[in-house]
Order: sequence, then C-alpha cells, then structure tokens
Amino acid sequence: MSIRTIVWNEFIHEREHADIAAIYPDGMHTCIAAALSREPDIAANTATLDQPDHGLPQSRLDDTDVLIWWGHMAHDRVNDDIVARVHKRVLEGMGLVVLHSGHHSKIFKRLMGTTCSLSWREAGERERLWIVNPSHPIAAGLGPSFVIEHEEMYGEPFGIPEPEQTVLISWFKGGEVFRSGVCYERGAGRIFYFRPGHETYPTYHHPQVQRVITNAVRWARPRAERWLDQCPNVKQMPEG
Amino acid sequence: MSIRTIVWNEFIHEREHADIAAIYPDGMHTCIAAALSREPDIAANTATLDQPDHGLPQSRLDDTDVLIWWGHMAHDRVNDDIVARVHKRVLEGMGLVVLHSGHHSKIFKRLMGTTCSLSWREAGERERLWIVNPSHPIAAGLGPSFVIEHEEMYGEPFGIPEPEQTVLISWFKGGEVFRSGVCYERGAGRIFYFRPGHETYPTYHHPQVQRVITNAVRWARPRAERWLDQCPNVKQMPEG
Amino acid sequence: MSIRTIVWNEFIHEREHADIAAIYPDGMHTCIAAALSREPDIAANTATLDQPDHGLPQSRLDDTDVLIWWGHMAHDRVNDDIVARVHKRVLEGMGLVVLHSGHHSKIFKRLMGTTCSLSWREAGERERLWIVNPSHPIAAGLGPSFVIEHEEMYGEPFGIPEPEQTVLISWFKGGEVFRSGVCYERGAGRIFYFRPGHETYPTYHHPQVQRVITNAVRWARPRAERWLDQCPNVKQMPEG
Amino acid sequence: MSIRTIVWNEFIHEREHADIAAIYPDGMHTCIAAALSREPDIAANTATLDQPDHGLPQSRLDDTDVLIWWGHMAHDRVNDDIVARVHKRVLEGMGLVVLHSGHHSKIFKRLMGTTCSLSWREAGERERLWIVNPSHPIAAGLGPSFVIEHEEMYGEPFGIPEPEQTVLISWFKGGEVFRSGVCYERGAGRIFYFRPGHETYPTYHHPQVQRVITNAVRWARPRAERWLDQCPNVKQMPEG
Repeated sequence: MSIRTIVWNEFIHEREHADIAAIYPDGMHTCIAAALSREPDIAANTATLDQPDHGLPQSRLDDTDVLIWWGHMAHDRVNDDIVARVHKRVLEGMGLVVLHSGHHSKIFKRLMGTTCSLSWREAGERERLWIVNPSHPIAAGLGPSFVIEHEEMYGEPFGIPEPEQTVLISWFKGGEVFRSGVCYERGAGRIFYFRPGHETYPTYHHPQVQRVITNAVRWARPRAERWLDQCPNVKQMPEG
Repeated sequence: MSIRTIVWNEFIHEREHADIAAIYPDGMHTCIAAALSREPDIAANTATLDQPDHGLPQSRLDDTDVLIWWGHMAHDRVNDDIVARVHKRVLEGMGLVVLHSGHHSKIFKRLMGTTCSLSWREAGERERLWIVNPSHPIAAGLGPSFVIEHEEMYGEPFGIPEPEQTVLISWFKGGEVFRSGVCYERGAGRIFYFRPGHETYPTYHHPQVQRVITNAVRWARPRAERWLDQCPNVKQMPEG
Repeated sequence: MSIRTIVWNEFIHEREHADIAAIYPDGMHTCIAAALSREPDIAANTATLDQPDHGLPQSRLDDTDVLIWWGHMAHDRVNDDIVARVHKRVLEGMGLVVLHSGHHSKIFKRLMGTTCSLSWREAGERERLWIVNPSHPIAAGLGPSFVIEHEEMYGEPFGIPEPEQTVLISWFKGGEVFRSGVCYERGAGRIFYFRPGHETYPTYHHPQVQRVITNAVRWARPRAERWLDQCPNVKQMPEG
Repeated sequence: MSIRTIVWNEFIHEREHADIAAIYPDGMHTCIAAALSREPDIAANTATLDQPDHGLPQSRLDDTDVLIWWGHMAHDRVNDDIVARVHKRVLEGMGLVVLHSGHHSKIFKRLMGTTCSLSWREAGERERLWIVNPSHPIAAGLGPSFVIEHEEMYGEPFGIPEPEQTVLISWFKGGEVFRSGVCYERGAGRIFYFRPGHETYPTYHHPQVQRVITNAVRWARPRAERWLDQCPNVKQMPEG
C-alpha cells in the first residue's frame, strides 16, 4: 500500500510576496507533494493553516502515515488542540518530517522537550550538506555531499536533544556548521528534522533535497500496528 | 559551595490518610530533605503544592541547583506557568530528579515529549533493583542490587524516549521488570527518573533509596554557566 | 529477493551429549534454519566450525545478507582471519544476530569493544521476556511478554556499550533481570544480541523465540549498497 | 588528589623532520604535558613508543587516571599486548583521550569496533571548531567557536559508532565538516576523540586546543572504584 503522506504548510509567505510566489506559484507544499507523487509507493496530499482544522481533522490524520511540516511566521496561530492531535498520532506511529523553520513549530518543540533554537543569517550563501552516515536509508542515492547554491544559514548550537542518528551536517560558506538531518523515535513514531528550505530560494525544486524528503518519508512510515502506550492496572502474572 | 536542592511534594496523601501520615509525619519531602541534609555538600529544602507559586517563585528557582519532584493525584493542579518556569530552569542547567508517580507529572512529560505511561499494580510486592551500569556516579556505593520488601509494581513498556543511560532495572516478585533509573540531558540540564516511592510504604526511609537520590543530586548539579540557547541573527564570520 | 541468511553454530554440544542431541538431532543451527525457511522472504542455510573456513569462505559471505551466530565452548577455536572477514562484512552492511553464549564470541566482543561479560546460573528456571519497545520491528507479533519455562539465567551487569535500542528485558524466577534484546549499528551493519538459547533446553523450538529471530533477520538485512568507509586523500571542493 | 595523566606519543615525526622539531623541540607530548601541568589539579607525565613497554608498564598504567594518545605512522609498531593492557585499563575506568591521527590507532579501533576511517587533505587550511553542546564540561570556557589558522583537513564520513555525545564539529575552509569532539563510555572508562593536531602545525600550542584537552582530562577521569565486569556463576537470590 502507498505511504499516505500529507505535506502541511502555513502557506503565507507565498501569498504575500510576489518573488516567493514566482518560485512556488502554488506554495511550497504543492511543490513538495508533486515531487513525492512521482514516486510509485507514495501518495501525497497537502494541508494548510487556513483550512478548517488546519486541514488536519482527526479522521484524516487517522489515515495518514507520514506528515511533513513547514511553518515559520505563524507558529503561534496553530491551534493547540490540533498540535495535541498530531502529537498523539506521532506517538501512535505516524512519521513526522519537520522542515527548516519548522524547528520552532509547536509540534517539534513538544516532541523534543527543548527550545530547538539555533543561530541564523539570511545571506543567500552556499550550503554544502555532507552525508555522515552513508548507509542510513535517508542517505540513499545521495553520494558524499551536495550543494545548495543559495540558502539561509542556520548555525550551532541547535537546541535539540542529542540526536539518535545524525545523517547530514551542513557546511556554510560564511563559516558555520549545522546538524541538518537528525533522527528521533518518540513512542511508536519516527521524526526527522531536515534543515533546508528558506522560502525565498528554490530549495524544494532541488533534486537532492527532494531525494532526502522522499527517503525520509519511507524511513518514517509506520513500522507496527497503531499503538499508544497506556497506564493499565495489571493483574499478577501467573507464577511470575 | 553546597548543592542547593529543593524537594518538591504535592503533599496530599500524607495529610489525608492516617496510615501514610504514620510513615511520613511531615511528608515524604521532609523525609527526603532530612536524608540529603546529612550530606556535607548538599543544602536541601522543601516546597509544596499549597504554597504560593507552589513554593517555586522565580527568585527561588534561580538559586536552585537541583529540584526533586514527587507528585501523583494532583498533577493537573500544578500551574502551567510554573511548569514553564521549571522547564526553562532545567534547560538552563538546573538538575531535575523525578520520583515514582512523577512519571506522569507535567514537567516530566514536557521534557520527554512522550506519554511516560507504564503498567502498575498495588500488591506490596518485593522489588529488587539491579545496577546495570556499576561505574555510573548514581550507582556509587550500591553494590550489585538492593531490595525493597514492599512496593507498588511498575511494569514495561515505559513510554519514554530511549534512555541516554540506564542505571537501574527493577525485578518484581509478581513477574515484571522496569527501567527504574534512567538519565537524560535536555538543554544544559540533567534529568534522572527514579522509580521507587509509593506513598503507602516507607521507601524513602530506605538507606539505599536515599543513596540513589543523593547520588542523583550530585550527578544532576549544574556543570556549566547558566545558559539557555537563543535564536540570534548572526553576522558572517570574518573570513569564514 | 530473499534475505540470504546463514545460521552458524560451533555444533559441539549436540554431538557430545545424547540429551542435547535428543533436543536438536541435527544441531541448533538446523532447527533455527528450518524455522527461518518457513518464511517466504528468507533463504536460510547453515555453517559450522568444523567446515573448511568454518563454512564461511569470503565468496559465501559476499553473498550473505544476515549471519546468525551461536558459539560457547569453542570461541577460541574460531580463526582470527575469519573473524576479521566477518567483521569487515558487518561493517560493509551484513546483518549479525548474536545468540545466547555468543556474547563472548570473538566477533561480538570485537564489534562492541567491551568484555560483554555477565553473571549466569544453570538452574533451569523460568524466564519471562518483556517487550519494552512494542513498536520496534523486532517486537512484531509478540504481545507484551512471553515465557520460556526452563532456561539458563543471565544476569546484569552485562558489559556492553549503552544499547542504541533496547527491545527486550528478561525477568528470571530466581531474582535477576537482563537486557535480552539490544540493537547496535556499526559501519553499515546492524547487530542484534538475543539472550535465550542454552543448549540443554528446547529454546529454539519455542515459537516466540523463533519469531524474535525471524524479526531480527528482517531488521538486520542490508539497507544500502555494500560500503566500507575508506581513508581517501581528497582534493578541495570547487569553491568550498 | 591530582588527576594522574600520561601523554603518549609515538615521537617519530619530531625526530625526523627539522621543521617539525622546530615547532615541538621536545615532541608534541612534552608540549601537551607542559600545558596540563599548569593546572593545579592535573599531574601530567609522558610516555613514548621507543621506551620499554612503550613507557606503559602495567604498574604505571595502574596508577594512571587518564591516558592521552597521539600516533600516526607507527600504529602497527604498537605491541598488541600493550594495546590489550591499555584496553583493559580503559574498561576498568581509566580515561582515554585520542588525538588527531590516533583515530587509526589500534586502541581506538579496538574500543570503537569500527574502521574509524575518514577523508583527509593536507592543505594547511583554516579550521573553525564549533561547540554544539555548550553545557558539556569539555566545552567549558570556550565560547561559541574558535579558529585554527592552518590545519590538515579531516572530512566525513568518520567511521565511528554514533557518538554518545557530540561536543565539537569542525568547519574547513575547503568545504568539509567533521565531528571533531565526540564522547563514548566503554566499561567503566570514558573516551574522548579530539581531531586537531597535525604534526606540521603548532596546534598543541593553541590556547583553546589546550583548553579542550584539559577539559577532556577532567571529564575522562575515573568516576568510580576500579572495576572490570566478570562472568561469575552466581547463586540464586534469597527469595528472588
């Protein structure tokens, strides 16, 4: 069965700035979903902040395997109840791929338990992403490194828990480094944070960026029955 | 300088049940603080739910190195603003030792990002705690294992992130096991969860339980300048 | 394509003791391989110590996806060159499942870098294995716990690096606990240690023990192109 | 009591090349030991390959808290028995700080279980080391980053197990990144790998490089009684 994927976007920058709209006429989410839809094993759709329930009603989340999240200026406008709903689905096994400025989203901070802060600079500088774990499924088909010619810089320290697996580390022309691809498991769910994707650059048209996101969707898909740990009162085992 | 420690307790069971009051006439927090106060390098005080700000005004937290947390029936009555305040102090470097039913406290769940659920049984059964990492500072002076004759059982699965270090695993007479002593770092703060301590048993009078808590206070003390990661806009490095 | 699996056994106990031969007439390896061969996606064969190259010539290892290892009394008789050969194949991506007394095998100690010691007792006592990570692929289809009525006891501390993932923890009737199912990645290879399997008990006929081993084979299969990190002298990147 | 530290060096380059001898007239080990000896809590001495037992007789290792290791062209000339002796002492609790080309030393590979390979380039290029975990004791007093003007480049992938803690990541002018400060625990011992230190540059005279090594010695000092896990046959617990 296909991996049922939703690409969520706050979808504001693209509507407010003509230069961004020129890069992503239908929004970054549509660009990403189109790339995913070319894969035979992925069924990708989209959701946005302005839709009812931000496009994420419970019934839809229940039928979703992986959720991709892009947010930036409207983190605070994401409803807390929907964050709780997404959180529960991740713990039940739904994968979550958090992109770029989503590092400060409510859902990512809630899952990490930390500030998820970082330093940054908008200078359109060269970023080279190195694969530090070449056998990881998220690195499939990437080669040793790839370049994004113009990107916003994100620098360390990145206020996250020690990653369970680090797949990519970025080099920036201006002198910084960043852990750009990091993996976590929380409950039954897998979480991947992927750094690139400032709205003013055509990053999500980049073939290797698309490859990372595609690989991440496959990696993050549910691996078990839907499951959420409970707090049951249990009887004694027979004979221990 | 002494390790400035606060033992926080919701302090309800001990006031409502004569049999519990008989074990802990001044509350579990006072019992634990008295044990810690016998150590030359620890200065222990207490705080309780019913005090203004739950006994945790910002000024007091600012002067605290390690906070110990016991809660059970009143998790929901802990004010969200104070949880946020404690959370920020942990990320800045304050140690946190979470005891027993504190696994479901707001602060622990917020730091872990998961349900922190488990299975349980009140049967007053024998618990043996094994030290699985004998060189860890929290295991100092403990020997291979120790027994608590009567305790509530907590069983797996325990809905926490994969521990960064597992120090103790419990065996229960009734047939279960539990990861009873687990370590995490979040931001600049260290977090230790320690399982024993059901209110109807004299667990916090137990010498080896006191030893674990004492060791944990030393392990969790701040190791660096107070620090919280920010999200600064930075200039380019000179020459990279 | 099928997961090409070799079950390796020193195959000595079964030849020297009639009571063990009665349980495993063709050796434990044959019993395990037969169970694996019932799975449509696994092609299992065997190899033993007494064969040329211990049944593990380079050409055969090159065509192997997962190697399962059972050894006990003859660890020292395993040729160092063949250990080096297996080690290299694991780093290239071949999965390794180490069973029971294989904790002291040369290959496991070499991959772990530690003593891999533990405490033990042969008392034919009841073992209950708890699944502490129910969403892990190795836990698929197992339920909360399962029992082996008679087994050798292995107790903590187990001298291994902190596990990357702990899937199973054992409870023993006699009072001990043990981290019985633990996961590591080294180079491109995945390693799973699984505790049960003393030669005097019919453990490898146990359906849930077979299930764990089957799941582990699937989990440990190579996930990427064969790859071994090298130490190349590299030219400077164009423009950084 | 002081932290008894040995700085070990193969001490060959400095004797064979006049330009290297000009930087380190008494060898890199002497330069590092002199820096450590300025600290009131550290007692530093040296040992070299050409001494009997490579300067590491058992009696001396028994009285050593932390061993620092620099090797490069003579890894193969380090006696296997002495490697085994050092390995055992690390598992017993002695700290080990591995420097630069020591990544390919027998002792580091034995503890890691992997190739520990990397890519490299000798171009005397600028290296900037970023502190990614500012609250870690090894980062004390360092600030956000520091620069080494001329160094050999080491690039990813670095063939090590996933680090338990990553403290420093390097940026190189030529376009690469590298995990330059990584922490592990094996048995009772702590291990820190620190990248800088090519013999043709005055790296070990650099104040912040000296600071990292000093911090690492404090971090890696033994934290418990000397202890090595054994494999005892144990009796049953009384009453479990």
